[in-house]
Parts: sequence; structure tokens; C-alpha cells
Amino acid sequence: MKLIFVVLCTFNIYFPGGIMAEQKATNLVWHEHMVKREDREELLNQKGTLLWFTGLSASGKSTVANEVASRLFKSGKLTYVLDGDNVRHGLNKNLGFSPEDREENIRRISEVGNLFVDAGIITTTAFISPYRKDRDYAREILGKGRFVEIFVKASIETCEARDPKGLYKKAKSGEIKEFTGISAPYEEPLNPEIVLDADSQSIEEEVQAVINYLTNNKII
Amino acid sequence: MKLIFVVLCTFNIYFPGGIMAEQKATNLVWHEHMVKREDREELLNQKGTLLWFTGLSASGKSTVANEVASRLFKSGKLTYVLDGDNVRHGLNKNLGFSPEDREENIRRISEVGNLFVDAGIITTTAFISPYRKDRDYAREILGKGRFVEIFVKASIETCEARDPKGLYKKAKSGEIKEFTGISAPYEEPLNPEIVLDADSQSIEEEVQAVINYLTNNKII
Repeated sequence: MKLIFVVLCTFNIYFPGGIMAEQKATNLVWHEHMVKREDREELLNQKGTLLWFTGLSASGKSTVANEVASRLFKSGKLTYVLDGDNVRHGLNKNLGFSPEDREENIRRISEVGNLFVDAGIITTTAFISPYRKDRDYAREILGKGRFVEIFVKASIETCEARDPKGLYKKAKSGEIKEFTGISAPYEEPLNPEIVLDADSQSIEEEVQAVINYLTNNKII
Repeated sequence: MKLIFVVLCTFNIYFPGGIMAEQKATNLVWHEHMVKREDREELLNQKGTLLWFTGLSASGKSTVANEVASRLFKSGKLTYVLDGDNVRHGLNKNLGFSPEDREENIRRISEVGNLFVDAGIITTTAFISPYRKDRDYAREILGKGRFVEIFVKASIETCEARDPKGLYKKAKSGEIKEFTGISAPYEEPLNPEIVLDADSQSIEEEVQAVINYLTNNKII
């Protein structure tokens, strides 16, 4: 019955106002997603992928993530940046900074990233995401080839020298507790797809390294 | 300083490998989203909009939401369906059916819908969403012209006659508690943008009514 209905509906695409118009509301079970990720990817001419930037505060994650997204967009790709600005003030505004809340924060970002990738979008996330298990959760739900872990490696000294919001100063004085790299751990990725070296590379070089990876791996 | 940096970077778009290559990691504050919703909408040639279907279980919300998304996609629009299949098992898998969890369920869907609309996508949601205040929350965060409330009006009799999962039977026997329409309230929308009448309209007619609204309001 379900198959027949799907066939009727497919038929109707080519004959609008045809037999479907006679189909009054009946006992339908028809909750399949008719448009698949592959269809959206074909429309967009790209592969939905999550580019997961991880690294210390002020390592340059957001800057590089934004620039990669912008560069790809200018070449006609649909991109989106998930970061503190649009996630912490909306979806995750009811989360604080307890260990449980931090884990839930990253879990929700992973799940939203998964939905964005399912929509066919090249999505970048720029969160410290200091714990391996949280990043591995994202890797697991996204699946092979859909998750690109990008470690923005920067020494504490580099980050402190930038420190645009004065957070390191506050962390060192104890005004901010449990600050990653100062008073809370950062677990470096063991096998990230890409390592960027913020101590020696320019922003431009970091961006280009990511673009090269995406090109070489046929993501763009 | 910030302005100068943005200018340098804009400049660099046209001269890749140029001055930006000399810009070593310094004290940057550059977290603006360089690509805006308007840019993405121009790329996609559409207006990011959240089509929020609401109505009783088995009223046909998912069917119509999927078919609208599918129809638009076939005309070249990027669409995405948020529904129980991809939300309850992922982002909202840690939520149950208590009043607080139901509210949080709809809140998260609203926020994710807002992100999708920001990405430029015509997004449909198909959840019972029985409470006005929850739907009004979505309306408020999406903003004027970005939220289209679609009330799929169906009598309990119509829904019971369909009842693909046998839920109404279980609700009446008490096996399922707090079932919307039987043992829990459904608050009808007061001023929805669209009302569909599942008792008298065919699926095809309902879909066409939504398409007509989108066309008339220049969303597509």
C-alpha cells in the first residue's frame, strides 16, 4: 500500500493536478524523507561536511573557520559557521559552564552540525571543545568522510599575546575559573585530519591548508 | 584596527597570496560573520523561511511538510524537513515527554530552525507543538516574515480513522498518558498564516495551498 502511494505521488509530479487531486485524506503512512542528502548535494554541487576546528581560546579558530567559509562561499559553495555567537545565545543559552553543561554544549553542536551536513552544507564549527570524547562523539555521529577535525595548534604564549578579550589575564588572576589551558585541561587531538600551526603559520597559510585538504579529498 | 584588517582581507580576496601572506598571527579580533544571510539567499535564489506545521497526531503534518519540501526542491529550492525522525533521535534524544521536556523540545527545534533559516534554507517543521506559547517563541525569535505558522486542522475523528501507529487506541485505553487531543490539550493557533483543512482537503490541495501562500508572499 505504501509503495503504491509513493508510486502514485511520483507519478503526480509529472502530472500535477492529476490523480493525486482525487486522493482524499486517508490512512497514510508516508513519513519518508523524499528528498535525500544526495539530492541536495547534487543541487549544491558539493559534499556536506563538518569542519570541526578545535584549539585553545584565542588560537584563531573562529578567524580561520570564518575565512574558510567565506572563501568557499565566494567560489559558489553554501557554507555556514556554527560558533559561540549563534549557538550560545540561542540553542545553548540554557547551558552554563559546568562539566555536564560543557559536554551537552558540544553534543548539541555535534547534532546540529549533523543536521546541517545532512542538508548538504559545508559547515564549520569553532569551539574550544577540549575533550577527546566529545569530539569523538561528533566524529561518530557524522560518519566517515563527513567529519574533518582541524586542530589549531597554538602555544599558550601565542594565545596570551593575542587574548583579545583579556581572558587569559582573568584566568591567571583567578577571576575566571576552569579556563582551558590555564586551569582546565585541553586534550590535543590524536589523529586530526588537519593540524594548523598558529605559532608559525599566517592566517592565510592556515586557510590555504584547509582549502588544499578539501580539494585533495574531493570535498570541494 | 579592525576595520583596517577587514579591508586588508577584502583586498586579499582579489590578490590571493598577496599582502595577507605576510600577516603573521597577531592580536586579531575578527569574529564577524563575513558571509551574511542575504548573501546565502542570493546564492540560493530564495528566502530563508521556517514553515511551522502544527496539528494533532495523524493530522497529516509530516506528509504535507515533506511533500511541500519535495515540491519546492524539484523547482530548484534548497529545503529541509525537521521532524521527529531526525530531531528526536539526535539533538533531542535526551528529552522525554514531561511538560518541561516538551517545552525544551520545541524550544530547541525553534532555535535550530532559526539557524537553518539564517543559512538561507526553506525549512519545514512537523511537530504537534500543542502550546501557543511555544509556537509564539519560535515566531518571536524568527522575526517578521520568516515564520509561517501552518495549522493542519483535523477532527479527532479524521485522525483516529488514520492513526497509522495505533496511538489513539492506546491513548483511549490509557496505555499512553497525556496524549494530545485525548488526554492533553491542543491549543489551536489564533492567527496562523495558513489553515489547512485535513477533513475536507486532499493532501494535494493542502500542498498547493502552501505553495500558493509562498508564491503570493514572494518567499519563492
